[in-house]
Amino acid sequence: MYNENGKYSISVCFSPLSWHLFAKEDSVVVIVDIFRATTAICAALHSGVRSIIPVADISESEDYKKKGFIIAGERDGQKLDCADLGNSPFQFLNPDLAGKTVVLNTTNGTQAIRAASSIGNIVAIGSFLNLDAVTRFVAQQSKPVVIFCAGWKNRFSLEDTLFAGALAQNLITRCNGDFHTMCDSVIASIDLWQIAQKDLNAYIQKAAHRHRLRRMGLDDILEFSLTQNFSNVVPVLSGIELVDAEKQS
Amino acid sequence: MYNENGKYSISVCFSPLSWHLFAKEDSVVVIVDIFRATTAICAALHSGVRSIIPVADISESEDYKKKGFIIAGERDGQKLDCADLGNSPFQFLNPDLAGKTVVLNTTNGTQAIRAASSIGNIVAIGSFLNLDAVTRFVAQQSKPVVIFCAGWKNRFSLEDTLFAGALAQNLITRCNGDFHTMCDSVIASIDLWQIAQKDLNAYIQKAAHRHRLRRMGLDDILEFSLTQNFSNVVPVLSGIELVDAEKQS
Repeated sequence: MYNENGKYSISVCFSPLSWHLFAKEDSVVVIVDIFRATTAICAALHSGVRSIIPVADISESEDYKKKGFIIAGERDGQKLDCADLGNSPFQFLNPDLAGKTVVLNTTNGTQAIRAASSIGNIVAIGSFLNLDAVTRFVAQQSKPVVIFCAGWKNRFSLEDTLFAGALAQNLITRCNGDFHTMCDSVIASIDLWQIAQKDLNAYIQKAAHRHRLRRMGLDDILEFSLTQNFSNVVPVLSGIELVDAEKQS
Repeated sequence: MYNENGKYSISVCFSPLSWHLFAKEDSVVVIVDIFRATTAICAALHSGVRSIIPVADISESEDYKKKGFIIAGERDGQKLDCADLGNSPFQFLNPDLAGKTVVLNTTNGTQAIRAASSIGNIVAIGSFLNLDAVTRFVAQQSKPVVIFCAGWKNRFSLEDTLFAGALAQNLITRCNGDFHTMCDSVIASIDLWQIAQKDLNAYIQKAAHRHRLRRMGLDDILEFSLTQNFSNVVPVLSGIELVDAEKQS
């Protein structure tokens, strides 16, 4: 699992369609879906939500609803019929949710989480909100890392790639030389991050999903979603739930 | 096939695994495999080779060999047993091949060509060698364009992405405003090209495939493969053969 220099490898997977090329056992997989699932999950745990159960299908949400869970989820910007909340990160910054478990319906993010966890890896959730915290968490695991961009309908996503670049750069420059890459997608992500980080809000205006969100009236979350180090939580998968790594251990 | 501004759309497909997301009828598809298939194809037609028949399997090459064709192809840097030539672009710069048809065994490139042609598109071959020529050819077709990076074993490839960025930038800046993009992979490709074009030979030192080629002793072709506008040929698919667009019409 080391490369030839005795360092831990970093890879970036740009789409769930490519996951099988990156899947390896005994790795840390960081799931990224900036607009909006992984940002929402970080916001929720930061505000005191005890755990998030990610689900991909509406029928799963309905089943949990019958069992009395709080349900969050949208399709095309409309709250699901069975849902108590949408999936804007702002909805999770609600003290009333403290200590609760929320079932979050998110197609791209859940598929990525399930694919990554199926081979027994450590699965963590990354977003700009917890960039430095997730960097420290990954560094502590002493394992190769795969940054898994959930994308949008299996497509390459600029905002997820920029986060991947930020995390990869942190790992390479801040972690005692423990990490290294020979992966073209990491090189591309870091170089794009180098351009974008000078003014991330301006750069992201180019992203396709930014335009989709605007058309759906959901672009109120952009600036918040790009806020770096708002939180120290690191959501990690424990069974079927995402919980803060610090509270888990 | 137009976007909302009445312009032709540009997309970049980073891997054959994603092709189904980009496949649409009535488009121009530019296949890119800089190290080495599409560079070799451009070099061959430039030197007077009449046509190239791309094949993916060794058994196909063997069948053509029995029919008397000139066979080119390698696996892991070793010439195929049935082959007369390897697939270095330099081997095709041979006046003795003028007027001949060569069967080229290239796994990544052939798969991409076949996928693109299966839905009746115009299929052209792009490399740095014919960057401006392929720009002009695409612009003349008055159709949406998909730049299809063949990649390496289905992975994202830096050198193919840089070419995609160069072609996309040419189409957007030089073609009377006829082209436009809303595709994150195009934006990323152009921004990477902006960084790399200042010193392409230096930038490509980072690419993973550059290291693979060096290990196999095949890196003599790097500088040539990155030479811009060495040729005005535009290989296009006609039946099962790639021929120069100018000689076809």
